[in-house]
Amino acid sequence: MNSTSTPVPREPLATVPLRDIRIDDPWFNRYIRLVNEVILPYQWAALNDAVPGAEPSHAVHNMRLAAGLESGEYGGPVFQDSDAMKWLEAVGYSLAVTPNPELEAQADSLIELIAQAQQPDGYFNSYFTVVAPHARWKNLTDAHELYVAGHLIEAAIAYYDGTGKRRLLDVAIRFADLIDRVFGPAEEQLPGYPGHQEIELALVKLWRTTGERRYLDLARFFIDERGREPNYFTTEKAAPDWYELYPGTRRSPTETAYFQAHLPVREQRTAVGHAVRATYMYAAMADIAAADGDQGLLDAAKRLWQDVAERQMYITGGIGQSGHLERFTTAYDLPNDANYSETCASIGLALFSRRLGNIERDSRYHDVVERALFNGIVSGLQLDGRRFFYVNPMSIWPANCLPHTMRRHVKPERQPWFGCACCPPNIARTLAGLGEYLYGVDRETGRIYIHQLIGNRATVRLATHSVEIGLEAALSEHGRVALRVASPEPVSLAIRIPGWADAGTLAGPRENGYLLLDLEAGEHQLNYEIPLPPELVLPHPEVRALQGRYAVMRGPLVYCLEEVDNGPELEALRIDDAAVLRNPTGKASADDRAPACLTVDDPVLGRYTRIRLPGWRAAAPADVPLYRPLRSGDETAAERYRPTATWWVPYALWCHRAPGEMLVWIRE
Amino acid sequence: MNSTSTPVPREPLATVPLRDIRIDDPWFNRYIRLVNEVILPYQWAALNDAVPGAEPSHAVHNMRLAAGLESGEYGGPVFQDSDAMKWLEAVGYSLAVTPNPELEAQADSLIELIAQAQQPDGYFNSYFTVVAPHARWKNLTDAHELYVAGHLIEAAIAYYDGTGKRRLLDVAIRFADLIDRVFGPAEEQLPGYPGHQEIELALVKLWRTTGERRYLDLARFFIDERGREPNYFTTEKAAPDWYELYPGTRRSPTETAYFQAHLPVREQRTAVGHAVRATYMYAAMADIAAADGDQGLLDAAKRLWQDVAERQMYITGGIGQSGHLERFTTAYDLPNDANYSETCASIGLALFSRRLGNIERDSRYHDVVERALFNGIVSGLQLDGRRFFYVNPMSIWPANCLPHTMRRHVKPERQPWFGCACCPPNIARTLAGLGEYLYGVDRETGRIYIHQLIGNRATVRLATHSVEIGLEAALSEHGRVALRVASPEPVSLAIRIPGWADAGTLAGPRENGYLLLDLEAGEHQLNYEIPLPPELVLPHPEVRALQGRYAVMRGPLVYCLEEVDNGPELEALRIDDAAVLRNPTGKASADDRAPACLTVDDPVLGRYTRIRLPGWRAAAPADVPLYRPLRSGDETAAERYRPTATWWVPYALWCHRAPGEMLVWIRE
Repeated sequence: MNSTSTPVPREPLATVPLRDIRIDDPWFNRYIRLVNEVILPYQWAALNDAVPGAEPSHAVHNMRLAAGLESGEYGGPVFQDSDAMKWLEAVGYSLAVTPNPELEAQADSLIELIAQAQQPDGYFNSYFTVVAPHARWKNLTDAHELYVAGHLIEAAIAYYDGTGKRRLLDVAIRFADLIDRVFGPAEEQLPGYPGHQEIELALVKLWRTTGERRYLDLARFFIDERGREPNYFTTEKAAPDWYELYPGTRRSPTETAYFQAHLPVREQRTAVGHAVRATYMYAAMADIAAADGDQGLLDAAKRLWQDVAERQMYITGGIGQSGHLERFTTAYDLPNDANYSETCASIGLALFSRRLGNIERDSRYHDVVERALFNGIVSGLQLDGRRFFYVNPMSIWPANCLPHTMRRHVKPERQPWFGCACCPPNIARTLAGLGEYLYGVDRETGRIYIHQLIGNRATVRLATHSVEIGLEAALSEHGRVALRVASPEPVSLAIRIPGWADAGTLAGPRENGYLLLDLEAGEHQLNYEIPLPPELVLPHPEVRALQGRYAVMRGPLVYCLEEVDNGPELEALRIDDAAVLRNPTGKASADDRAPACLTVDDPVLGRYTRIRLPGWRAAAPADVPLYRPLRSGDETAAERYRPTATWWVPYALWCHRAPGEMLVWIRE
Repeated sequence: MNSTSTPVPREPLATVPLRDIRIDDPWFNRYIRLVNEVILPYQWAALNDAVPGAEPSHAVHNMRLAAGLESGEYGGPVFQDSDAMKWLEAVGYSLAVTPNPELEAQADSLIELIAQAQQPDGYFNSYFTVVAPHARWKNLTDAHELYVAGHLIEAAIAYYDGTGKRRLLDVAIRFADLIDRVFGPAEEQLPGYPGHQEIELALVKLWRTTGERRYLDLARFFIDERGREPNYFTTEKAAPDWYELYPGTRRSPTETAYFQAHLPVREQRTAVGHAVRATYMYAAMADIAAADGDQGLLDAAKRLWQDVAERQMYITGGIGQSGHLERFTTAYDLPNDANYSETCASIGLALFSRRLGNIERDSRYHDVVERALFNGIVSGLQLDGRRFFYVNPMSIWPANCLPHTMRRHVKPERQPWFGCACCPPNIARTLAGLGEYLYGVDRETGRIYIHQLIGNRATVRLATHSVEIGLEAALSEHGRVALRVASPEPVSLAIRIPGWADAGTLAGPRENGYLLLDLEAGEHQLNYEIPLPPELVLPHPEVRALQGRYAVMRGPLVYCLEEVDNGPELEALRIDDAAVLRNPTGKASADDRAPACLTVDDPVLGRYTRIRLPGWRAAAPADVPLYRPLRSGDETAAERYRPTATWWVPYALWCHRAPGEMLVWIRE
């Protein structure tokens, strides 16, 4: 493993259990309400193929086949069980906060079905049980068996935590025990690892829940084996009993970098391949490094985080630039016109960043969490709870989102439930489990870290006493933050100063981007005012695609231009940066182009803050050829533009009022 | 067919035979010399698998198999014969101008082999003869049999015209006669048409060469059948004896728009699908319309040309925007960062435009020919004659041309001979046949059209006498054009005024973009001076990807920035349009940023003209994060730039001196 002379990571900050947190924040309230009132019931219907007009999920049907309760054909992709598991995980989180007997009964019935579909030896997977029982573990590259197992384990733990019910946890443990027998270094075991990472972080959770060390060891085995030579994926494909899942794949070489199996994970320096697989693996690397004090593994995870967050991340927290196989490309390659930025990948980035943040006690990891939570994750969800973006574009011109082209993956509007529907239940579990992102507790010092300025009330249980915290915040509207703390003992707090906040705000002693507060026993009320002017954001000079452009942010929210507010041809617009700087507070004025932040109640979007900024629009010449020379007497660039106001809405809310063009980065 | 009441197209202008033209132009001399001295011998070696280190072509080997002279396995794609045919076509053009006994002997030996590989009934196709003799005409969608036949016919005619030898022409005629028996409207015939168009325009040529009307009728049959319901491609795939060439295609639906078979051709309003197939078909539509006076078909061709040239064409004459299947996308969708612009597609555009220009007597069609010839076609060729661009990008950042991503098709440097090597021999035949683009003769009026200001000497044979024309021109260097005309009779000339030329040049009576000259019998010398300042070119306001950018042109040449001249991060540069306009002549001055055109002799590029233009470069901040807010006290856009000179080279010459970044459209 690793030299013991390197510094050992500290015990990571503990999250506060969901049942001890009540979120109350205007930005997230609407989404959490959506999860409980619309998404979970809608997805239950979807899993049961009961949504009229939608592509069937087949998920429950497949399990009924596996349980022998029905006969028929398996439907949907090989990993279809995982949608049900992510739904159950979300239900577990939701029930931890909000009792709902009807929902719980639905979940219990699904769990009973899963238990019936589990095979006598503990194996669970509807596809292989129904379609290819002879082919278990014969194609780890493509078959997603360990991925589904990971989601089963995560669901079981969430449901156990949320309800105290062990039924699914017992199923998960029996399956994990089987996997622990099948995989490992012994002669009769398989030295393999999953084509789609996920089980590694789930096994770490199972270790924490059960205290059984061997689950952590198994997770470490998967991580340590990965990328070693001879490569397992190449080896298994050469075996005579390899199971060809997708026609033609036997003949094509396995491109191991897609699966982050091109090098041992400790030797990986840049984020490559499929972005969701990558971030789930990186998250597990951080977990295992912290659990075992493995500094080398932690350093590898931190280097990979740096490559993602400092060189391959869109401003919305979107990652995985390439529309070809949802993957990373290379440093500073962040084109706007064909990006992928799968919603699930932003979720993976948040999972990974939270873990590193809790190990490192460093706010910049939670800055990235905030970026993803407020922007690239919720942008995936329509406010009716029934439509989703799989791909979260940085600019849209509907006419060029064409089938059969390079941009075929970019949709100009959110789509209803998908055949491959990984994102909708992933958003649901993330929002239902949002509380896990808010706090970190240092068990050694008793210090409580407030990672996110998201309004909530929480009870933080320390070893000897509890601390009551009330955080009033509404960063999507204003910068007033009120913190109430009640503790029978003196309490040490660390409040993250958001990376976007001006240096002068939240004055006091600081450490790693946190404001430190040491409070006496008793009740305290602290009030802060963080200025929230609209700000122009510049890209790194190496990001070729964004040079000469600004993004607009206000607090944690990335804003965008929409056709419904600004007319078509958004690329004809430029921003007047000098005028924005002259009025940095964004206070409304009589000038109808001057910077202004206007909080409005919209029938579709609810309460939100629009921004007006001064800019120009190119005078559009009529009836010109495709290319025309600039001639003396024509207007130069400086003369071609007419003053106009530009109108901005939060990126996450785009495409609700009318379809049309959208643009995040505006020209200087 | 078509209502006879619509106006009937006039007889198209006739081209002047290649043997009557000697090109002498500094821009094209180097390329034509390359064809004769390097490309044709190199490609002969390549066809014979005799280039060390290059992927084998298999082309000659395959024909030897088909002729029964060897045994072994067929190699390369199904259409591999066509590379040999395009080589023969180029040789035919070359021999028409430049005798070369060695080359002619090689060609004769290849022709002998083709004749031996021809089957007793006239069929020729190495793949089907060797691999699947039972499957002739069983998969018109994918199998390219009619495509290869078309190139065989074109080669045969070129070789006959160039050498007077009929051997290959007789082979072609026997094959064409077989095709004429197999395809047609009768019960026992197939009502099919090619998946890759090409034979249509070849059959029109065969009609012109032989005078046999049935070849024209067969071409018309292919054009008229195309896109009718029930769709032939869908129907043939449902047949029990359909021949599956590519695994998995039987199960996938045929996307008929890719093959321009989604609608009857007369009903097609926008250019869709594979760009080469499209332009070859459009060219045949123009030919047939002219031959039969079919105004409806001509109108359809003109509408499609308009959609391509006025809405879907890069400034270099590159077409087919999408890197997914080399296809058109939609109006004004011209992104720079991932374009395709296959060299062959620009050749197809030139073929199509020349035909419409010769029918319509309108200079704008030849403007597009000029754009493609000077830029997007020759850019495909390295000046060593051994490397080629299949894809001609509008910007390159080498680090983001990655395998396994959306940009995997974009290569930062020209590549040696390809496995699918359609482009190299296509460039060769185009350059060898360049003379066909220069003149058009109106047989009715005797007027001689000079379409291109490319230096040459020609003998134009009219019905009763010949006219000697000498055109001295070197538009790649200067604007002085000298025209010498000698005629025993009065002569009427029309000289195309290039679309880029300022209104005041080439004064005199004009018609459809041509300067009209009526000269008495005798010898004449006319001198013109066309100003050639560097010009800034603006894109149409609907081209979202190019707003706020200029291209630089000088005469017919598109220019670009290269890293070797300007350093990396070309996107940090902006152009000073006002300063360019203040010095429109581009005369050199003491100011070391002032516009200047400098003709230089370069060891690699030869003699060419560089351009210097005033601009700015963004001051690159060191060590900044991926995203940073613009704060009061920071520099606004207006203050962030430092004056610099920008250096421009002809687009076609990029990537010769050093690999690196390249950019056509610079920021305002």
